[in-house]
Amino acid sequence: MRSYIAEFIGTALLLAIVAGSGIMGDTLGVGNAAVALLGNSIATGAGLYVLITLLGPISGAHFNPVVSLMFYKLGDLNLKQLVGYLICQFSGAITGILLTHVMFNLPLLQESTKVRTGLGIWVSEIVSTLVLLSVIRIGVKGAKDRVPMLVALTVTAGYWFTSSTFFSNPAVTVARSFTNTFVGIAPQDVLGFLLAELFATIMMVMVFCRQK
Amino acid sequence: MRSYIAEFIGTALLLAIVAGSGIMGDTLGVGNAAVALLGNSIATGAGLYVLITLLGPISGAHFNPVVSLMFYKLGDLNLKQLVGYLICQFSGAITGILLTHVMFNLPLLQESTKVRTGLGIWVSEIVSTLVLLSVIRIGVKGAKDRVPMLVALTVTAGYWFTSSTFFSNPAVTVARSFTNTFVGIAPQDVLGFLLAELFATIMMVMVFCRQK
Amino acid sequence: MRSYIAEFIGTALLLAIVAGSGIMGDTLGVGNAAVALLGNSIATGAGLYVLITLLGPISGAHFNPVVSLMFYKLGDLNLKQLVGYLICQFSGAITGILLTHVMFNLPLLQESTKVRTGLGIWVSEIVSTLVLLSVIRIGVKGAKDRVPMLVALTVTAGYWFTSSTFFSNPAVTVARSFTNTFVGIAPQDVLGFLLAELFATIMMVMVFCRQK
Amino acid sequence: MRSYIAEFIGTALLLAIVAGSGIMGDTLGVGNAAVALLGNSIATGAGLYVLITLLGPISGAHFNPVVSLMFYKLGDLNLKQLVGYLICQFSGAITGILLTHVMFNLPLLQESTKVRTGLGIWVSEIVSTLVLLSVIRIGVKGAKDRVPMLVALTVTAGYWFTSSTFFSNPAVTVARSFTNTFVGIAPQDVLGFLLAELFATIMMVMVFCRQK
Repeated sequence: MRSYIAEFIGTALLLAIVAGSGIMGDTLGVGNAAVALLGNSIATGAGLYVLITLLGPISGAHFNPVVSLMFYKLGDLNLKQLVGYLICQFSGAITGILLTHVMFNLPLLQESTKVRTGLGIWVSEIVSTLVLLSVIRIGVKGAKDRVPMLVALTVTAGYWFTSSTFFSNPAVTVARSFTNTFVGIAPQDVLGFLLAELFATIMMVMVFCRQK
Repeated sequence: MRSYIAEFIGTALLLAIVAGSGIMGDTLGVGNAAVALLGNSIATGAGLYVLITLLGPISGAHFNPVVSLMFYKLGDLNLKQLVGYLICQFSGAITGILLTHVMFNLPLLQESTKVRTGLGIWVSEIVSTLVLLSVIRIGVKGAKDRVPMLVALTVTAGYWFTSSTFFSNPAVTVARSFTNTFVGIAPQDVLGFLLAELFATIMMVMVFCRQK
Repeated sequence: MRSYIAEFIGTALLLAIVAGSGIMGDTLGVGNAAVALLGNSIATGAGLYVLITLLGPISGAHFNPVVSLMFYKLGDLNLKQLVGYLICQFSGAITGILLTHVMFNLPLLQESTKVRTGLGIWVSEIVSTLVLLSVIRIGVKGAKDRVPMLVALTVTAGYWFTSSTFFSNPAVTVARSFTNTFVGIAPQDVLGFLLAELFATIMMVMVFCRQK
Repeated sequence: MRSYIAEFIGTALLLAIVAGSGIMGDTLGVGNAAVALLGNSIATGAGLYVLITLLGPISGAHFNPVVSLMFYKLGDLNLKQLVGYLICQFSGAITGILLTHVMFNLPLLQESTKVRTGLGIWVSEIVSTLVLLSVIRIGVKGAKDRVPMLVALTVTAGYWFTSSTFFSNPAVTVARSFTNTFVGIAPQDVLGFLLAELFATIMMVMVFCRQK
């Protein structure tokens, strides 16, 4: 039970950090989206370090359906736990977006109009997910106490070097379609992201399961 | 006695860092408040890491009345110590603001005119305080040697993802009403912040004391 | 075999991070190259920390021909391994540039027009390579578990304090001539960089081999 | 002998990082000095972490006459060593400035015209030096392996929260009068800085020697 609560709260806070810092940077950084992305990427990395350090011992700090899927295939979660994790992650992510809207006095329910589509972006999202899952998998096996820093810095760098800005998380992707702010994604572009993330996850699972 | 001095000096320096870096960013970063917030949030996180690492072993490095209140309810401070800590924190915080005004050649006594009010901001301040107290409590129990980094990165991220910019500290709140600069808060808005911070503290104490 | 794959993937991702974050910063940060360089340097440092932490145990995480050359002279690699490493690093670097062009929907094959030449820049590139090799050599001997952080922060600082922006890597230099973006280098300027990097490497090898 | 070389090279590189990153930020960040200060403060912090980690075991990594003075009074250096350290620090600092001018194709010999004077700035410089020496002294006694990070983050924060931008180092102060760039200080203002730094050092030595 505590692990489900951890996944729910962690994912909610992750989304609040992602969306809130995006709104803050976009509002203050008039006309310079690079400054907004700096704040966005630094805040997200900093927040991930904290959330993974503190909630990792409780639930593993997945906050991400494809991470849970990978650990399910590797035998660390059973099917019932997987389903529980996924429910907490998706509901947590949307809750985090709603909380952010409340904090910034924005309409509670929104629909993003931000276009994020095209071959380059899908390739970018495949690369992002491959990188994230590899970092987690290799990190957990070989440098367990550095995993919070590894994931945090991977995402901070990822915001900058991928054209999709490193979503690599289906719960994050769906939730970000509910906010028409800096970090939004138009609902019609969600499916492309989800397919890219799933495709990369299947690839990684096949690689890692052969190694076992 | 050494712990009182540590709380006074630590809180004074914390406020000097918060206010000084705000003034610096605001002065240099003409017309781009996001750049000012970057400097402000990075400097505050960096400073907190140093202050907590060095003064933690002496006083616990609370620098924050609601943190002291939580540790009093958890039995780590007695009533006399709590009162001493609070006096040092409030007087230290105001001293830090005055020192900053001296360093930047500004009028010593000021009154902020910066409006920070509204439901969104109060919710934000409740969230900030819940997050800060949880990070400290869980961190001290499970990852004690990482607490300086955890608190530092929580606050750096907090500046960005909350609409209230993560005061979460009554001494900081009161002291920042005495500076009419980037980080100020108008005196009439102080009470709302204090109530939000206290409300969150009572919630956390109730949760944590049940766990004990 | 695993070490060759690690060098190929690591160098490819390094170049994707360098070039991708440069493109992102340049595109978003209209008219302020300093903001672009901030994103570029923070992302590169963050990425290097992750890549060196995870791939270091497999291949040493050189990602750089002059680093491999140094370790060959110090006896850590034999000639066959050296040749293998160099092939993986150059091909990996170019692959990383191509991958970045795909992710950002840019023409796959490009030729940089960015002029990077002159005595100051060559001196800067000699200094960069001397610093990088010294940091790695002294770090590996005296602070092995901090090498990822040391190299990451050296490069982050190096982007800022050297006029050549700290290439210090022949594979990076050659690959960056294939991208006409923020981080490019015109093909006619590549030779000057390579000579500077080699000159510095020979100096360091002579110093270090005398110490042995 | 190795310790003198370490002090010379370390101080030279420190000044190259300080001055070079200032020039880079100022040149690229047209009209926004806050962005320049971000690059300047991040690069300096990153560089200090590397230099102190690697050279600390050799010379203590002072790079600063008032730090050497403090350790002399505490008995860690004898008079002959102190004199040697000071010579290496001052000559290293000036060498670092000259090297930076070479790298950036600037006139080798320059004289700063940047005014840095007034009561606020002197108070700021006293505070800076008190903070730096306290961090080093308390850090070395209680958290020795964190000293590189503590000093690095102290200086990064210090650039932002003090009106004098945290020189707190006589060798740095003198050397920066020889560069008419972002980080310069007019020769006529050097004496005020030196007196402030010495005054703070005498205060700290008196406090620390009583504790012994």
